[in-house]
Amino acid sequence: MRFVIIGGDAAGMSAASRAKRNNPEMEVIVLEQTMDVSYSACGMPYNIADAEREMDELIVRKPEVFIKKNHINLLTGHRVDNIDRKSKIITGSKFLNNSESPVKFSFEYDKLLIATGASPILPDLPGIELPQVMILKSLDQGRLIKSYISANNVKQIVIIGMGYIAIEMSEAFRKRGIETILVKPGPEFLPWMARDLAGVVKTEMENNGVDLKTGYFVKNIVSKDKGVSVECEKLSLNADMVFVAMGVKPLSNIAKDAGLELGISDAISVDKQLLTSDKDIYAAGDCADAFDVITKQKCWVPLALRANRAGWAVADNVCGKSVSLEGIVATSVFKAFSLEIARSGLNLEQAIKAGFDPVENTVKTRSRAHGHPGSTTIYISMVGDRKTGRLLGAQMVGKEGVAHRINAIAVALHNHMSVKGFSGTDLAYAPPFSPVWDPLLTAANQLLKKL
Amino acid sequence: MRFVIIGGDAAGMSAASRAKRNNPEMEVIVLEQTMDVSYSACGMPYNIADAEREMDELIVRKPEVFIKKNHINLLTGHRVDNIDRKSKIITGSKFLNNSESPVKFSFEYDKLLIATGASPILPDLPGIELPQVMILKSLDQGRLIKSYISANNVKQIVIIGMGYIAIEMSEAFRKRGIETILVKPGPEFLPWMARDLAGVVKTEMENNGVDLKTGYFVKNIVSKDKGVSVECEKLSLNADMVFVAMGVKPLSNIAKDAGLELGISDAISVDKQLLTSDKDIYAAGDCADAFDVITKQKCWVPLALRANRAGWAVADNVCGKSVSLEGIVATSVFKAFSLEIARSGLNLEQAIKAGFDPVENTVKTRSRAHGHPGSTTIYISMVGDRKTGRLLGAQMVGKEGVAHRINAIAVALHNHMSVKGFSGTDLAYAPPFSPVWDPLLTAANQLLKKL
Repeated sequence: MRFVIIGGDAAGMSAASRAKRNNPEMEVIVLEQTMDVSYSACGMPYNIADAEREMDELIVRKPEVFIKKNHINLLTGHRVDNIDRKSKIITGSKFLNNSESPVKFSFEYDKLLIATGASPILPDLPGIELPQVMILKSLDQGRLIKSYISANNVKQIVIIGMGYIAIEMSEAFRKRGIETILVKPGPEFLPWMARDLAGVVKTEMENNGVDLKTGYFVKNIVSKDKGVSVECEKLSLNADMVFVAMGVKPLSNIAKDAGLELGISDAISVDKQLLTSDKDIYAAGDCADAFDVITKQKCWVPLALRANRAGWAVADNVCGKSVSLEGIVATSVFKAFSLEIARSGLNLEQAIKAGFDPVENTVKTRSRAHGHPGSTTIYISMVGDRKTGRLLGAQMVGKEGVAHRINAIAVALHNHMSVKGFSGTDLAYAPPFSPVWDPLLTAANQLLKKL
Repeated sequence: MRFVIIGGDAAGMSAASRAKRNNPEMEVIVLEQTMDVSYSACGMPYNIADAEREMDELIVRKPEVFIKKNHINLLTGHRVDNIDRKSKIITGSKFLNNSESPVKFSFEYDKLLIATGASPILPDLPGIELPQVMILKSLDQGRLIKSYISANNVKQIVIIGMGYIAIEMSEAFRKRGIETILVKPGPEFLPWMARDLAGVVKTEMENNGVDLKTGYFVKNIVSKDKGVSVECEKLSLNADMVFVAMGVKPLSNIAKDAGLELGISDAISVDKQLLTSDKDIYAAGDCADAFDVITKQKCWVPLALRANRAGWAVADNVCGKSVSLEGIVATSVFKAFSLEIARSGLNLEQAIKAGFDPVENTVKTRSRAHGHPGSTTIYISMVGDRKTGRLLGAQMVGKEGVAHRINAIAVALHNHMSVKGFSGTDLAYAPPFSPVWDPLLTAANQLLKKL
């Protein structure tokens, strides 16, 4: 049995390692187009923040370890271009050192995993190809940003986009002492968030010297002196570097070209066993979709845990174990300077779209007990369904106790708990860590009054 | 309708305030034997740690506010001695200022709430009555400890007991620069904990200069110079002060004398509506028992959240709303110097006792992502049932990310989740806050292999 994996990032390497653990006799081939596998991609902004740290600190395991220790046939620098489903052969090009023309390769497969990930969305505008314009997906791109900052003594950066990667990167740039301006066409900062909470994050950004320019559509980027000018209608911003963080899209072209079914956001459509519309081809990670546990509908939320878990599940299924993944509740967390920002489940708009009759309520509460020093404010917006009383989601912002608290919401959502049921849970209390009524319980109690 | 409440702490004042909110016309009488109501009792160790802070900072609301703003007939300095269930009259004694002999009082009630709390267990040994021997339940006792330390320049304290109050107080005393020795008869430190985890806490205590003397039974306390000597077989410890923290017992005598049914640990037995064996008498807070959601059996776990919640439920029931509390999963957290220590659900021994076929597994994992600076070790011990695959409980110890993470376990336990189900939950990930696989998921994944 030969198990071929396209892509050596979270999902791909999880699948490869687990397949060999399940079945050491299995032939596992991984084709990765970059030279890096198994690194903490999400750690890149924090590494970029610190000039002293090597990018390679983020590498969890080097390719040679997978090859020698795990006996995985890991081929870096190998880009797969085509899947021939009839003859079950993939073909691609490898780029040898010091060679300009790629060399073709091909492999037959018994089972195939597409784990090509996602890639940053690049706007179609003049100047996007300039060398000062950067994106962040691979470790090499991280290395490039870092060396570019040092080599060119970058003093001013414009970030196109205002999502969580843009926010994490703005923190990294500010830590390097770089003037940072974020620009986006939409009028609202973090539009998926409850307005009160988004306002708290916005203030934190501004207090840390980040300039947020909402409502500006970038028309082009032009060279200017050693840097560039980012041109919007009625606004032009000088920059030594431009960082594009307008979101990501699934890398599903290869699947599409092979006639596999795509789903929401053009992600590769998979069932709960991660199988695509071809019974011998799986897809996992940021290129594939998932089931939303709350709506029971398909969703596309490219996040690392799902990628790793899906990789494992594919390996188990390829090895005949028959594993199904129930789905996700879209839990995520990120940091913006001293704030922790977390969400799980649906926001008001998503809940309406999914056919619920949602009610949202926001509370402002304390991170520690009355009279305990060091207490800070926690904001929680919680959404419930009027018709059924179900808890649908929550968002939180605060300086402490947010990142891990959201997990209680995630578990509640997996269990289709009602707001009332959740409000009756026995959460932990000690003065240094929370008020007697945990902020989550206060949020549930207050939302209950509105339901 | 007259609603009389015995005890003005967490459960009593929660009930009183909520009853007046539910029904402003209701006559609500609260009888509290001390002069303080509504303060953060759990905050006392942290206040004692800081000589500069006033004990009164822990007061959430003063008696006069309840009286004037909430129109609660709150009577401090009133100790209830007797309940006459037939005639529905309580009688007691009040202690007037500058008066030596108590004055009797009595009230008729329509509905009665017993919220007398719990009190520290005092061992029956010679010298326990010495003025250097302290306990901590009321704010006055906290004030006394604090002023005694300052007035007598206390340099050495012996704590009898090694539970979480003893640990919190040892941290407080160490912060005041006081030599602190903990002594207890049992051979094991934190016997309810998985041994690996208890060992981590023990090391932290010792690294902070706390002397832990297990296996010593205190036989008596004798005066010595200005202080005392705590005498055990083969050990005598000098101390300027002795703090007794051997656990607490429910203050249920008044209920017992009135012929109400007591249950586990002599706590007042209540149903899910907090009703005692008398249809007009409720009990709530640390004097009453609760249902364990996991075992479906009665348990007695005196903690603040349950007290507050039970107080609310009693008020709702008294006001005709018919509220039932499902029960608790015994979630708790405390701090020991730089460690957070949390638990929820059953440990191995409790699980065996409850008739499960439990398996325990301990993992050691990281608090942050690979390559993220500042990562520390998190220890998790998780218990599951071999027969059904159910998650039964977890304990955690670590320097960060423990106190709030335990809430995910609590919610899972409320939902009778399996270890497998829990291992499939969509928990939050970002490099500053956790590895891709949250420590809880790693714990579940590892336990699954053993089940």
